Amino acid sequence: MRRQEDVMKRTLITLLTMGLVMVFAALAAAQANDPLPSWNEGASKQAIKQFVKDVSTKGGPRFVAPEERIAVFDNDGTLWAEQPMYFQLAFALDQVKALAPMHPEWNEKQPFKGVLENDLKAVLDGGEHALLEIVMATHAGNTTDEFSQTVKDWLTTAKHPKTGRPYTDMVYQPMLELLAFLRANGFKTYIVSGGGIEFMRPWSERVYGIPPEQVIGSSIKTKFEFRDGMPVLVRLPEINFIDDKAGKPVGINQHIGRRPIAAFGNSDGDHQMLQWTTAGSGARFALLVHHTDAEREWAYDRSSSIGHLDKALDEAQMKGWTVVNMKRDWKLIFPFEKK
Amino acid sequence: MRRQEDVMKRTLITLLTMGLVMVFAALAAAQANDPLPSWNEGASKQAIKQFVKDVSTKGGPRFVAPEERIAVFDNDGTLWAEQPMYFQLAFALDQVKALAPMHPEWNEKQPFKGVLENDLKAVLDGGEHALLEIVMATHAGNTTDEFSQTVKDWLTTAKHPKTGRPYTDMVYQPMLELLAFLRANGFKTYIVSGGGIEFMRPWSERVYGIPPEQVIGSSIKTKFEFRDGMPVLVRLPEINFIDDKAGKPVGINQHIGRRPIAAFGNSDGDHQMLQWTTAGSGARFALLVHHTDAEREWAYDRSSSIGHLDKALDEAQMKGWTVVNMKRDWKLIFPFEKK
Repeated sequence: MRRQEDVMKRTLITLLTMGLVMVFAALAAAQANDPLPSWNEGASKQAIKQFVKDVSTKGGPRFVAPEERIAVFDNDGTLWAEQPMYFQLAFALDQVKALAPMHPEWNEKQPFKGVLENDLKAVLDGGEHALLEIVMATHAGNTTDEFSQTVKDWLTTAKHPKTGRPYTDMVYQPMLELLAFLRANGFKTYIVSGGGIEFMRPWSERVYGIPPEQVIGSSIKTKFEFRDGMPVLVRLPEINFIDDKAGKPVGINQHIGRRPIAAFGNSDGDHQMLQWTTAGSGARFALLVHHTDAEREWAYDRSSSIGHLDKALDEAQMKGWTVVNMKRDWKLIFPFEKK
Repeated sequence: MRRQEDVMKRTLITLLTMGLVMVFAALAAAQANDPLPSWNEGASKQAIKQFVKDVSTKGGPRFVAPEERIAVFDNDGTLWAEQPMYFQLAFALDQVKALAPMHPEWNEKQPFKGVLENDLKAVLDGGEHALLEIVMATHAGNTTDEFSQTVKDWLTTAKHPKTGRPYTDMVYQPMLELLAFLRANGFKTYIVSGGGIEFMRPWSERVYGIPPEQVIGSSIKTKFEFRDGMPVLVRLPEINFIDDKAGKPVGINQHIGRRPIAAFGNSDGDHQMLQWTTAGSGARFALLVHHTDAEREWAYDRSSSIGHLDKALDEAQMKGWTVVNMKRDWKLIFPFEKK
């Protein structure tokens, strides 16, 4: 009797232990297999995973051929932060300071005077025209190769005013995971930004895994000519294309020539891109990043001039587009928060 | 003795047979392994194979990382024929006829009158302005989706005046093999054409294996708007970009954002693209298709208005760029010549 009990007890313990080991193993495996570890469980994460599963399930009713799996992402406020000012504007202001010794007249001339005196209010008082003047003075005149090098050099030294980190550290960890998850499922990921195409291309591959040919943005005109016997492309002080608002579907058509099946944005500047994407037939996905976390990032929407989100938010709620609540949906915001 | 002789004879025959079988097998394998079977052996074929081997040999002195293996191809006269007129012009003329019932005024108005009366001379007398009028009348006003469908419909019915074949049959078999060979070695292949980007995209993937996002061309402006509650892109009668001559490097930079390492063309319209490509560092390749076969295709170069090849040919000879002699270098011109 005693012997039999012992055997039963040992067997029971063994089974329990095995059971627990299996449970823990399953949990660990689930965690290791989670393609979006920085996303909290919830409707947003669920919707993304379901869409990706649907379009990549061969024979399923919502299957999409791999070559049509095009996903477009806004950049400022969607893939990286955009406060307290668009990072490209910070670059332009720094460039004004770097170029100032060659332009003594800037000391007396707005908007440059304001930049040199760190009087941002005076700069912004000049409105759109002042900003355009700054962009042209800092983004044109050189060759494409030279400009690319200037951007790379700036990124190695410039620091974000709030975090003291390089600007390319200020990317959203959950969005990096989302980009990788989509690519692992046959998607081609594109940036479609109001920002400058040549400002993003020098670092988009390193930071986002998005090659230059998959970056769409605003641009100035360039001109082919010879300098010292070598062919170069010179950047002209003339707008070529503004890739914002109704310009985004135009830019997408011009560069890709197919309608995306998924679009990701954060402001009314992305509204038409989301409308264009979701108006196609078959499985479609639209997502807005809603900046709701004043503590870890910034909180802004309808009343903000940067990242103004109003009409697109209304349509998202009406159409059932996914709206990411940064505070609730994201475990981490920036990669440097990782322990 | 007799028996021994028999054995020796049989053995000898067996060995000879085996030897012959092996020789034939080796020959067949060599032929099957030839990535460019429609190219005759010679300097052009050798130069292509050597370049591809060089850039894809890991650890070699001319190795190029796969993501930088960008190859750009002109279309008219390089990938498909361009005589007796650019095929897109044939499309435009057919469209004038198709649209004429809605435009009774065209019966009295050049250049449309000339088109309707098959008086090409009267049309061409109008010069560039007349052609622009025809392009705008036939390429604008509709949506991008409608235009794409019009191109597809045209290709199913239109026939080339000389061969009676669909225009998409008039592609060069050796160039199809070259495209496939490059892609098999990690290259991304692009079209960079003076022709319309939206005229090529509906069929480039089917015919060349080149997806729409890898087609660069001339374009008219488009506008995002709503029609019947649905977002559409409307094609405007306004030039956006001319992707020809010095415009080709500009278009390449705009769309790809990297300098190609290989460029393929056939006319002075491709000259700057070849200059731009070969001016980069590391392994570079430039090739001109020289139309020398009046019998199987057409023969033209320095004095031709279509496919005018003059300065680029001089530079090719000076710089040692590969010049394909169609008559000598190509076993077949068109796929339909295959037995």
